[in-house]
Amino acid sequence: MAAQLPSDLPADIAARLKSEFDLIPAIAQDAKTGEVLMLAYMNRQSLAITLKTGRATYWSRSRQELWEKGATSGHTQKVLALSFDCDGDAILIKVEQVGAACHTGEQSCFHNPIALNGSEGQR
Amino acid sequence: MAAQLPSDLPADIAARLKSEFDLIPAIAQDAKTGEVLMLAYMNRQSLAITLKTGRATYWSRSRQELWEKGATSGHTQKVLALSFDCDGDAILIKVEQVGAACHTGEQSCFHNPIALNGSEGQR
Repeated sequence: MAAQLPSDLPADIAARLKSEFDLIPAIAQDAKTGEVLMLAYMNRQSLAITLKTGRATYWSRSRQELWEKGATSGHTQKVLALSFDCDGDAILIKVEQVGAACHTGEQSCFHNPIALNGSEGQR
Repeated sequence: MAAQLPSDLPADIAARLKSEFDLIPAIAQDAKTGEVLMLAYMNRQSLAITLKTGRATYWSRSRQELWEKGATSGHTQKVLALSFDCDGDAILIKVEQVGAACHTGEQSCFHNPIALNGSEGQR
């Protein structure tokens, strides 16, 4: 990452998060369509970078590294709004999604419907 | 909980989840408005109960017990659709929300906007 990017959250924002904050789930929602695109995780640094750059940046648990969404695929997420939930342990970002959010090529990662009590699964 | 409720997931559904599944984040989205209402966690049993009853049932991490949403407040969530994400480690449910989803009385738990790089925070 470029040297000018923040390494931690501003204190006033950190104070609004739950104190045991390590990784926080972040929901990305398409700002235009309302479709829920994906859920990934942010650590303090990736959240600080997201707030500073306006580009959704997560912490990859599998690769154990910062992950700027779309940096390799081009399927970037411009963050238009970001909110914490009532108890400061989840994040919702509203994004302008370029291309598909899911690595499978589907627009949303949530494309595996599960049937409810005998009914057919729907998205 | 009533005795006839399931204690675990059906094997075919469990096989679609990540094997290290313990608690899985579940996003509740208002099926009508598209608003993201909350993020909570399910364990295998609460997911099984949700699938069987069609009523959103989570695992309360603070109380360490099953939590049928709205059982005490009346602010229930009827589940209209449920999907896993591409790697089987997150759930999206589309719900018919009765009353407010948030215990604060706000419709959505995500009512704490954080400003992006100097701009005003918006929901």
